[in-house]
Amino acid sequence: MMKNFGNSRGYSILLVLFSSLFGTNAFLASPTITLNQKLSVSPLQMSSTESDDAGIHVMVNGMPGPMATAAAEACLRKGMKLTPVAMTGPDIEPMTIMVYDPVSQKSQEVRLIPSTQKEELSASIEGLKSSYGEKNVLAIDYTHPLAVNSNADFYVDQKLPFVMGTTGGDREKLMDGVNGAKHFAVIAPNMAKQIVAMQAALEDLSRKFPGSFASYKIACRESHQKTKADTSGTAKAVIDSLTELSDDEFTYDDIEMIRDDQGAIDFGVPEEAMNGHAFHRYTLTSADGTTQFALEHNVSGRTIYAEGTADAVKFLAGRVKEENDGKVYSMIDVLEAGGLE
Amino acid sequence: MMKNFGNSRGYSILLVLFSSLFGTNAFLASPTITLNQKLSVSPLQMSSTESDDAGIHVMVNGMPGPMATAAAEACLRKGMKLTPVAMTGPDIEPMTIMVYDPVSQKSQEVRLIPSTQKEELSASIEGLKSSYGEKNVLAIDYTHPLAVNSNADFYVDQKLPFVMGTTGGDREKLMDGVNGAKHFAVIAPNMAKQIVAMQAALEDLSRKFPGSFASYKIACRESHQKTKADTSGTAKAVIDSLTELSDDEFTYDDIEMIRDDQGAIDFGVPEEAMNGHAFHRYTLTSADGTTQFALEHNVSGRTIYAEGTADAVKFLAGRVKEENDGKVYSMIDVLEAGGLE
Repeated sequence: MMKNFGNSRGYSILLVLFSSLFGTNAFLASPTITLNQKLSVSPLQMSSTESDDAGIHVMVNGMPGPMATAAAEACLRKGMKLTPVAMTGPDIEPMTIMVYDPVSQKSQEVRLIPSTQKEELSASIEGLKSSYGEKNVLAIDYTHPLAVNSNADFYVDQKLPFVMGTTGGDREKLMDGVNGAKHFAVIAPNMAKQIVAMQAALEDLSRKFPGSFASYKIACRESHQKTKADTSGTAKAVIDSLTELSDDEFTYDDIEMIRDDQGAIDFGVPEEAMNGHAFHRYTLTSADGTTQFALEHNVSGRTIYAEGTADAVKFLAGRVKEENDGKVYSMIDVLEAGGLE
Repeated sequence: MMKNFGNSRGYSILLVLFSSLFGTNAFLASPTITLNQKLSVSPLQMSSTESDDAGIHVMVNGMPGPMATAAAEACLRKGMKLTPVAMTGPDIEPMTIMVYDPVSQKSQEVRLIPSTQKEELSASIEGLKSSYGEKNVLAIDYTHPLAVNSNADFYVDQKLPFVMGTTGGDREKLMDGVNGAKHFAVIAPNMAKQIVAMQAALEDLSRKFPGSFASYKIACRESHQKTKADTSGTAKAVIDSLTELSDDEFTYDDIEMIRDDQGAIDFGVPEEAMNGHAFHRYTLTSADGTTQFALEHNVSGRTIYAEGTADAVKFLAGRVKEENDGKVYSMIDVLEAGGLE
């Protein structure tokens, strides 16, 4: 049962949300609720950059869904603050939750307002901007595929820069709407910054040296939680690069999918990640078998996506301060800017 | 015992050399000698490109050393021809050997002339050029570190384009001499084309997105034959890139070296490769351990180096035909040209 603490600001009972592994639908996931959790907050030690980041206030929309909650925790971990109000799903009762990051041991209360109450949300955003500064309030969206386009329209109307982590919706309309309004947003199908970097490296390699692995045979195995029916999109993208490097006639159908517990365990997936993981291993093997290259990217849980999302917010806050006109940025833009820090 | 067939052209007794795994010194390695080996030569099917390659005649210097012999086999396999004479070490008796490539089942006789007999070698090279065309004769050098500079000088004097696979010697003098003479050469410390490509991809990634794997921990294990005392140079180069991507303070001393049979077997090295292999595994692991990237490059024997050398010869033959002035090319140049084919 979801308890509703409404607008209560009292600290006597804290509602602490810990993100559990991958829910398929952010709004429908039921969080673990811990009452009277004792929090020991460590003293904040900030460098000048961290001090800048501390000025960033992030409205994380989609809590108490586990992906939104993980992103909120990552924002705290990376030195940013959460806005005291955020948007939740239309069917979720208004409530106040406590977001707690176990790594930094930072915590912050957030009051969740259903997405149907647009006027209250709009007034709150106005208030946040006048409190923290127009350019210091940004949103993260981990809501629902059906909400992607209406939420994006709302952010544009509110002049609220946003990072869209929610997949689905009409993506072309999404991109066109944001670019047309010269609005600031990071929109990416995969927020895992390091995986995007790895994919980019392989794409670059296949463009620079196509055919350099001619006569090498490709193999690919990937394991995901049982609920994922389709083949890994990342695996497909990597295979696109590998088939440029090699002349092997490997197709997506040749990707070996593992969707059972025993297969996953044999593949090296930890037992606690059975319900949420993305493990991949690719090999390129020479015709005579004497040389083999292998690449693995193995993810348990959602930390990498949450932290990539927080990095995207930091990046976007920088763009908002430096550029007059906004546009849609990608994770590649986030990665490139990271090198300039 | 090494048999000397001198200038004999008779086919009644064939001396067939099979390259064995990695000798530490090309000239001192003793090849397996098979007498009266029956050869079944398959019909030559050539595309137009292969037809061009068939015009290339390669003087493979350093046979019967195993690396030179493997390179000669790779030249046959990749559709080129061997010159009927080549240079061998000063202490090796003149002899005629049969180079046989088991994959293409092509074979060719080569008479080896000791490097001390420079006048005979010089006259032979003149003869080869007038027979096959000035631009169709190129050399491969897998000789001895002590011979690197004098051999390079000899090739420059003879206007003989060359691929230098031999390591050691005075490298600066080597590069300056070739570039100064505008001579055509490929000189590379590592002829394994695909490993060079992988290293380049990692270097590019670390230049484009430095710090993108901040907070990730680096680990590296490598296994080589027991006779290799020092740490893998490729591992060091890869670590240079990984430490740009991550902020982990990983040093070369943290590379875990495996130099014993049991350790190698546990690491996945095939038993037949105990005396010649180069296995590497690197991991980047996120601070909370939920994400791991892994890269492996595992080489048994010397095929990858031999085939990279043959690819370098093909590349160099193209440059000789298209450019007026030569220079030192690298394996990156070879890789880049490969994409244009």
